[in-house]
Amino acid sequence: MTGRLIGVGLGPGDPELVTRRAWQRVSEARVIAYPVLESGDSFARRIVAEAIAPDAREIAITVPMTVARAPAQAAYDAGAAEIAAALDAGQDVVLLCEGDPLFYGSFMYLMARLEDRFEVEVVPGVTSITACAAALRRPLAARTDTLTILPGTLPEAELEARIASADAVAVMKLGRHMPKVRRVIDRLGLTAKAGYVERATLPEGRACALSDAPDTAPYFSMILLTKGADPWLN
Amino acid sequence: MTGRLIGVGLGPGDPELVTRRAWQRVSEARVIAYPVLESGDSFARRIVAEAIAPDAREIAITVPMTVARAPAQAAYDAGAAEIAAALDAGQDVVLLCEGDPLFYGSFMYLMARLEDRFEVEVVPGVTSITACAAALRRPLAARTDTLTILPGTLPEAELEARIASADAVAVMKLGRHMPKVRRVIDRLGLTAKAGYVERATLPEGRACALSDAPDTAPYFSMILLTKGADPWLN
Repeated sequence: MTGRLIGVGLGPGDPELVTRRAWQRVSEARVIAYPVLESGDSFARRIVAEAIAPDAREIAITVPMTVARAPAQAAYDAGAAEIAAALDAGQDVVLLCEGDPLFYGSFMYLMARLEDRFEVEVVPGVTSITACAAALRRPLAARTDTLTILPGTLPEAELEARIASADAVAVMKLGRHMPKVRRVIDRLGLTAKAGYVERATLPEGRACALSDAPDTAPYFSMILLTKGADPWLN
Repeated sequence: MTGRLIGVGLGPGDPELVTRRAWQRVSEARVIAYPVLESGDSFARRIVAEAIAPDAREIAITVPMTVARAPAQAAYDAGAAEIAAALDAGQDVVLLCEGDPLFYGSFMYLMARLEDRFEVEVVPGVTSITACAAALRRPLAARTDTLTILPGTLPEAELEARIASADAVAVMKLGRHMPKVRRVIDRLGLTAKAGYVERATLPEGRACALSDAPDTAPYFSMILLTKGADPWLN
């Protein structure tokens, strides 16, 4: 009997926003895997640190943050091999994921390398999108609205075209792309309809109108923009 | 001291996919409000039925399911008035929301009527989007992908244009719009890249390739479509 790979979404950062199932899967895990930055920090692990059994085995997968794909591919290959060894030995492996396992992030690359040989379970999590809307207390989408989720890394012209044609927009992964994204939203005359959130649900988090946002943004930040009708009228 | 309105996202249906905070807010609630269909059924209430204190006061808000907006507006006005009376009396009111409070659904209409007079807290929840991706075990979006969320109620030409220009698509609210949505996806040659999920995370739920999906779909069903690159390569 081989083990099961369990990808567990941990939500946006606040341990209280972990689902009951995710908390239980982590608490019961004998083998836990998670991505770590080259600094050694794992945001995913921090979210559920108090649920991890002291004697659980931990597999840290160091994923280099570079635009080049080859180093990340090699990291996923090595991480998948280490996870596969545990699964082959009959142990379940709980893989910790910030947010939701299938919404950006590393899980899908590890799953792609393992799903043909092992049983996979995915526990969905709260995404940063709805966490940011909650922080701003602004509706994301209603009735026949469409919602478009864009990475801030897109080229300026594509960002502009996609924002112009959408009803509601979330722009993720701002970081150093913040000035470009603000320029586009300004040019479209939509700044007054946009909110900014960084590190949603964390103690150091912040939510404000886009016009009050800082010029530089961390990677974990987002702009939400809604053109929709006043909910009062609906 | 007036009370606080707490909009609590309960996730896609499985009580285990409720967050720890949402479960606690419901367990502690002395006044609970939720939308009910004209049949008297409340999906939101069913998700957390075992967490509700037996002696909690319950405010059921009957929301008529019609295309005309006036009956729904009247229902929200009446529901907001009943909630406001409890808040004015100093009681917190926990408002139960399927999925996430600010992602479609009724909460935003009640919030719009109350937020100027009362403190509002929003607890984000797992959306049906990531729950459906988990059921299919398919990535939703990776790296520089955009994700577009569309209601199946859109006109056929708009659906087609928006699906054609997106990297990844979730089509919600299928119901009687299912034949139209399938026709559009077929015409774009994308059926082989699409999955279908109904009643995600519930015992009677089902997930399959779109080509194996039924001709008629319930309201709580979704199509996920990804054109992105193979995650193996990333």
